[in-house]
Order: sequence, then C-alpha cells, then structure tokens
Amino acid sequence: MRTRAAVALAPGKPLEVMEVNLEGPKWGEVLIEVKATGICHTDEFTLSGADPEGLFPAILGHEGAGIVLECGPGVTSLKPGDHVIPLYTPECRQCPSCLSRKTNLCTAIRATQGQGMMPDGTTRFSMLDGTPIHHYMGCSTFANHTVLPEIALAKVREDAPFDKICYIGCGVTTGVGAVINTAKVEIGAKAVVYGLGGIGLNVIQGLRLAGADMIIGVDINNDRKGWGERFGMTHFVNPREIEGSVVQHIVNMTKTPFDQIGGADYSFDCTGNVQVMRDALECTHRGWGQSIIIGVAPAGAVIETRPFQLVTGRVWKGTAFGGARGRTDVPKIVDWYMDGKIQIDPMITHTMGLDDINKGFELMKRGESIRGVVVY
Amino acid sequence: MRTRAAVALAPGKPLEVMEVNLEGPKWGEVLIEVKATGICHTDEFTLSGADPEGLFPAILGHEGAGIVLECGPGVTSLKPGDHVIPLYTPECRQCPSCLSRKTNLCTAIRATQGQGMMPDGTTRFSMLDGTPIHHYMGCSTFANHTVLPEIALAKVREDAPFDKICYIGCGVTTGVGAVINTAKVEIGAKAVVYGLGGIGLNVIQGLRLAGADMIIGVDINNDRKGWGERFGMTHFVNPREIEGSVVQHIVNMTKTPFDQIGGADYSFDCTGNVQVMRDALECTHRGWGQSIIIGVAPAGAVIETRPFQLVTGRVWKGTAFGGARGRTDVPKIVDWYMDGKIQIDPMITHTMGLDDINKGFELMKRGESIRGVVVY
Repeated sequence: MRTRAAVALAPGKPLEVMEVNLEGPKWGEVLIEVKATGICHTDEFTLSGADPEGLFPAILGHEGAGIVLECGPGVTSLKPGDHVIPLYTPECRQCPSCLSRKTNLCTAIRATQGQGMMPDGTTRFSMLDGTPIHHYMGCSTFANHTVLPEIALAKVREDAPFDKICYIGCGVTTGVGAVINTAKVEIGAKAVVYGLGGIGLNVIQGLRLAGADMIIGVDINNDRKGWGERFGMTHFVNPREIEGSVVQHIVNMTKTPFDQIGGADYSFDCTGNVQVMRDALECTHRGWGQSIIIGVAPAGAVIETRPFQLVTGRVWKGTAFGGARGRTDVPKIVDWYMDGKIQIDPMITHTMGLDDINKGFELMKRGESIRGVVVY
Repeated sequence: MRTRAAVALAPGKPLEVMEVNLEGPKWGEVLIEVKATGICHTDEFTLSGADPEGLFPAILGHEGAGIVLECGPGVTSLKPGDHVIPLYTPECRQCPSCLSRKTNLCTAIRATQGQGMMPDGTTRFSMLDGTPIHHYMGCSTFANHTVLPEIALAKVREDAPFDKICYIGCGVTTGVGAVINTAKVEIGAKAVVYGLGGIGLNVIQGLRLAGADMIIGVDINNDRKGWGERFGMTHFVNPREIEGSVVQHIVNMTKTPFDQIGGADYSFDCTGNVQVMRDALECTHRGWGQSIIIGVAPAGAVIETRPFQLVTGRVWKGTAFGGARGRTDVPKIVDWYMDGKIQIDPMITHTMGLDDINKGFELMKRGESIRGVVVY
C-alpha cells in the first residue's frame, strides 16, 4: 500500500512530506493506522544529526496512537479495530530482561530496532523509487500508517482520544513512570525537577500523584513557573536569579528545624545537560538521596562527581521510558488520564496536520510549545 | 589517668609509642580499656598525609574491641565490665538520619568527630606537656585506654575473643554489610569484587552468606586468588593476564545460553581507584546492575561515566561502614562469627604488641598482611 509520511531524508534538513510504499505485516507484525503523534526532543535530536546512531532516510516519530488495521500471521493478542499505542520499548515477556522482574528494557528486538529495521532485518517502508526507508525507534509514527511487531503495541481502551493519549507513548510515561517505577517516591517526600519541559512537567504530576510534600522545579525560563504550578510544583528556582549555587540553594530550601543537613529525597534531571546531572545528584540528601537521569546527553558527554557523594549515601540512577513495561503499564496510564488522576490536555499546546510538522519542530526548538501533536 | 598510645605526631612519620594523659568520661561518655585493634588502610591514608582532613597530633585506630571501665553521667545502656566495639559511625537513634530508616549515617556528633574532638568540642587525650591530642574517627583505638560517647559503642557478647572481633569494628562489617545492607544481594546473584584486601575478602564472604552463585574476584596480585577462594570466591580475574578489557571479560564470563547480554548483577569496588570504580559500574548488567563503591578515593578524584550507563538501568551507589547501624547490627555480626557463619581468624594474618605497630603498617603497605592486629 501507499501512505503519507514526513520523511527525514538527511540530517539537519526539514522533513519532507511525501507518499511512500508500505509493505503489509509479516509474521508477528501488525499494520496500524496512526491517528495522532507527538513531536519529541528525541526526534529533533536525531533529525539534527547530533545522534551518532541516527540513520537516514528514516520516518521518525515515536509517540503515537492509532488503530489496528491488519494482523500478520502469529499475532494473537491484537485484532483489527483495537486501539493501540506504539512502544519504542517493547515488552515481549519472554527475554532475560522481561523475565528478570528488574527492568523494563526488553531486548527481544533491540538489535534490529537499533538498525532501523523490523525484526527480520528488513524495512516495510520504501521510497516510490524502491529505496528502503529506515524505521525509527521501532515506531515511525510520522507516517499515517506504520507496521510494528505485536510486542511493541499496547492495547488501550477505545474511548480515549488519540490526540491526547499519543503523548503517553513517550513523555507522560517517561515522566510519571520515573517517579513511580524508578524512584518509587513515597508520600511526604521532597523532590527536585530540573528542566520543566514536556518530560519535567510529567515528572511533576507524577510527584503529585505520589504524594510528595515539596516539588521544586528548576528552569532558566521563568515562563515555566506557571506551567509547573499547574501540575503540582510547590517551589520554583531560576538558577540565574539566585545567589550562589543551585545545589546549596536547594539544600537550604529543604532544611527543617529538625533536619539541618538538608537536601532533596529525590531529584530528576530532564535537561540532558551533564553539569545539571551532577547538580541534581549533589543537591540530594546525604544518606539516602536518589537522583534519576532522564535527559539524553550529547554524544560522548560524561557525568562526574566525587565518589564521596555516593559513599555518603546518595544513589545515582537513570530511567528509560519511565521504567514502564509498555503493554502492561501504558493501558493503566491511559486509565489514569481518563479518570482524571493525571492531566494531558493542557500540555498539548499545539495541534497541526502532517503538512505542518516542520512548524511543530520549530515551536519546540524555540521553547514555545510544551507538546505539539500531529493529527492525521 | 595515664595510658600508653601510638601517637601520630605528624603526617608521613612513623607512630610514636608513648605515655599520654587521658581524662575520664564526661556526660554521656564511657572510658574503655582497648584489648585489641586492627590496622586499616584508612589509618594509613591519614597517617601518610594524603587525607586532606587529617589532624595532628592524633591517636589513630578505629577498629577495636575492649571492656568498659567507667561510665560518665547520663550513660544508661552500658556498665563497667561490658564488652564493646567502638563505632566510628555512631547510632544515636534520635537524629534525622537515624530516624529516617534510610541510612546508617548518624549525624549526632558528626561535626565534632570530624574535628578530632569529643561532642563537647574538647579532647580527652593530651601529651604529658599538656598539648591536646586529637581523637580519630571518634575511636582512637591505638591507645590502651580511650573515651567514646555511649552512642559510639556496640555492646557485644562476652565470650567473643577481642583479638578477632576487633575486625568487626571496620573491615568485616564494611564488607559483609555492603552486600547485605547496601546491595541487598539475593540468592543466585552474580557478583564481582574488585580488590581482594581486607575489605574485598569480607565482601566475598558476605556474598557467600547471601547465596550468590558466581563470586568473581578481581586483583592484580595473584597471591590473592587463594585468599579469595578460601572465603567463597568462585572465579578469579587478574586484569594483567587477560586479553582486552576487564569489563568485556566479565560481561562475557556472565553470559549464559539464555542471556547473551551478560554483566554482573552486583559489583563492589574495594580499591579506591576511580578508574576501577568506572569499570565496576560498566561491567554490571544492563537493566539492573548495581555497583557499590566502598573504597576511599584520593582527595579531589572524581568518578565518571556516560549517563547512558545509568539510563539503561545501572545503579551507582556507595556505602560507609557497610550500611550497618552499629549498636544494632554489630552485635549480630559478632554472633555470626561465633556461630561460624562468617570467618575472621584466617584473615588475621599478624598479631603484635603496640610497640611493633609500625611494623604492622609496613606489612599492610607491602600487601603482605590481610589484617594486622595489635593486642594490648
């Protein structure tokens, strides 16, 4: 079949919307119609050429929602008409990682996914001249139709709006999940969130859901103060408007008459800046502070700290897709949204058609959108 | 009163054994007779001058065992004749850290202890000419008698031999505790221990106690292979005798037919070398590997890694005194020793009188002793 897609032909160039060929689903694969897709910084990271593992031409996009049109042979858990969210972190429930009960990082199709291929090592997309087009993060939601392995699709309820729940395919789950699955924040905790973009705001609402007492947002953009407060932030720090270091400022903010040591119980980096990652670790409480890295750092960048920070009880962690097991956890997060436990609507600041997708990238790069969503 | 002590008069000089003055216990303090004390690398670190927080003159030693001679006013949990192990990490059970239930790093007397003082800001030791002598790590077990706060003494059973259980005051608890309290290693785990000295061997026996399947020891000294095996090590790696990197070597060793990713479930750095700390993190399993820093790094040294290591599920932690709450946990470890669950006797390779303490330091520096113990 043919479908319309925004194709990344080369690094650093705008996407080109065009007709492409799409082969039907092979064994264990599913053809879906994408109804909506978010635009995420990770797409931009790859499109810009900064991602050393970026492949071109490719159909980017990894934050979608849609409907199953056709199941290939061997597919047992989905049928045409099912509503689904594509998963760039699949959940096969069979591999050593899935069976470990310790991680969400399913490895069943990791090798081929990293090469922009379906599990059999080929692509389903091609240019009209026959040139293969790479898949991206196993999803390629910047196409009106796409093919994914069954294990990379979460089946969700049918009354949930595609143009909102697509955001659960990445940003919402990453932020909320980092709090719930990775940090396991407890009621009454004090937490700091560095970077109040599309991920940071979801960390904030995850913290509110978890019952945190103090939710400190850190951003150099004062416009983000109102945004943070909307989702539960209790304190805002603009590093450019305080005296001294952010670390010391946060340590002081978190002191109490009883606890004069100070420090956050949990911190989250949503910036991808390795210096901020160090601050995030070092502002946590001696003895038990945990810092969770969510942001994606530039290629080759390293984090560093004195080992004394860890020997005195701090813990340095990271998270991918919020530690969520996609097929199991994503449907629950859709329920939370539909039940009003978490908000998504206000974060979707811009919607557009596929033809305007490059405008969506521009809004994101200028920090004007929280989330732009393409509706097919 | 007067007592005999090995005094560190200046950095980089041998200890000098001499008579010193010792004031009796003040409020909340206890006078003990030290019966035995281990010699630890941390004492050497300070004596050498490498410790930027080292103070002189001081009476070093922090790994002792002894008998209560006299209790100051306000002491309720100890009486003369009780057998005790001094705790450089006290347990007040009242401070924010003790009450957090998340850390063993009691902060009740941290500030004065760091300054080489008792909690009232003065020293009990002085030279015969009246010059004050600093306490060390709140213990100063290189004196035949010493004074400690009640909260820095663990009461232990009276049938346990002082010249063995003194080692529980630091090395044993640090190593075994890192496994049990900090990493919480589970039965069947695969673990790597970097550095098979007085701490690393105790990590190994902690891993055996925890039921680990694979206990890989890493040391550049082949003599340590036999030592490791004695306490439960199942595999030995000498980094100088393998092809390629230690990290890749360990990843390959830990692969199974089912799990072709490989990596240790847990690793422990007992070297203090920041490059080894990085290796220790990076040889752990994608998705869930935890690396625990135990070793003390040189002043100013930093650890570094790519954040990707954490984002893909590895956890970087540290531990001090094995995460043990001294008054609660040390008596249990003494029981484990007396019950034969852990071994200490073979690790005490040398015993000596106080007059020979500098020989004990030399043996340690040359790597010839596992533990040297001074018996008074």
